[in-house]
Amino acid sequence: MKHFSLEEIAGWDRFYRANFINSLSGFKPVSLISTKSKEGINNLAIFSNIVHIGADPALVGFINRPIDAAPHTIQNIEQIGYYTINHIHPSFVAAAHQTSAKYDVGISEFEKVGLHAEYKVDFYAPFVMESKVQYALELAEIIPIKRNNTFLVIGELKHVFIDQEIIANDGLINLSKVDSMVSLGIDGYCLTSPVARFQYAKPDKDLGIIDL
Amino acid sequence: MKHFSLEEIAGWDRFYRANFINSLSGFKPVSLISTKSKEGINNLAIFSNIVHIGADPALVGFINRPIDAAPHTIQNIEQIGYYTINHIHPSFVAAAHQTSAKYDVGISEFEKVGLHAEYKVDFYAPFVMESKVQYALELAEIIPIKRNNTFLVIGELKHVFIDQEIIANDGLINLSKVDSMVSLGIDGYCLTSPVARFQYAKPDKDLGIIDL
Repeated sequence: MKHFSLEEIAGWDRFYRANFINSLSGFKPVSLISTKSKEGINNLAIFSNIVHIGADPALVGFINRPIDAAPHTIQNIEQIGYYTINHIHPSFVAAAHQTSAKYDVGISEFEKVGLHAEYKVDFYAPFVMESKVQYALELAEIIPIKRNNTFLVIGELKHVFIDQEIIANDGLINLSKVDSMVSLGIDGYCLTSPVARFQYAKPDKDLGIIDL
Repeated sequence: MKHFSLEEIAGWDRFYRANFINSLSGFKPVSLISTKSKEGINNLAIFSNIVHIGADPALVGFINRPIDAAPHTIQNIEQIGYYTINHIHPSFVAAAHQTSAKYDVGISEFEKVGLHAEYKVDFYAPFVMESKVQYALELAEIIPIKRNNTFLVIGELKHVFIDQEIIANDGLINLSKVDSMVSLGIDGYCLTSPVARFQYAKPDKDLGIIDL
């Protein structure tokens, strides 16, 4: 294997380095985050740096870039407190990527990219109608990351919409069955195929396999 | 689609709910985090909640569970300041999962699960020899998440080891070529297959496709 030191990486062209670093940490759970402003304008934006924080309470986080680079989603969340996260599937992955274009604040990405805002359960922010895994969050905390002026935005789960058939007997949501995509780097998108599940591991005990 | 409210989810059996919530946010960039204690004992543990924080400076974060549930990795990082993250491939995914067993602090998971510690570039913590994507970090910041007593551990990139052949002309690391795995929920593992890359999106401009 080839060794790349930080000194070498720091000397690379900015775009080359960004592609490299963004793919180094692995495939990412890319999704569309949907918000609605105080003025009633829907905003839809693609985020790949989403992270499971905990199951009880059910908390999901995402990294928002510095405010000047990506203001709309975080400002709507801060003002309103509610947002939805929606998985991406191959049928609309190009539209999902197009939400990353810098539209003006008064413009709804839903209309521009051809996705549909779906309102339900009296939730303030819309869901993405085309998405097969939709969940709604209430803002829990915004944690500034001083090192690079990004933010960890943490939400507490309020609602989930999925098909019952993709839930395994023990609660696992089999996302491969609905082709939920992962992203690679800044602009790559992939599908997944199941390999295996393993039982709860214990020292000095053989590991059992569960079907996936 | 079926609607699940927080009230319904909160009433579920603990394990069913954990499987459900852990898979809801999407596939995860599962990896092995390797540390070495002050006493010289290697520790190896599987983590799935890894998140790209930024490319310049190059920062990667992961969520560490509450200290009493998962003390070894975070304590070694706090004391020593250096650790490595190593991708997982099908040839050793069972061994990687086995690192989640609760071994005593004086025991090295490397030996117990049959993976090999590789020392190089004078880095204090070992790399996982079997891994085809290895990177080394220096601790930047540990941010407590008070809502559930977890921690966001952020490291700054110091070294990368990968094959030159998996790097695209523009810097993207094509992780599908080395079968870097993703995880699903607590115990599921999947492979990925590339679908497409898209050009930088701009308002009112058709989206170009790049090979992946």
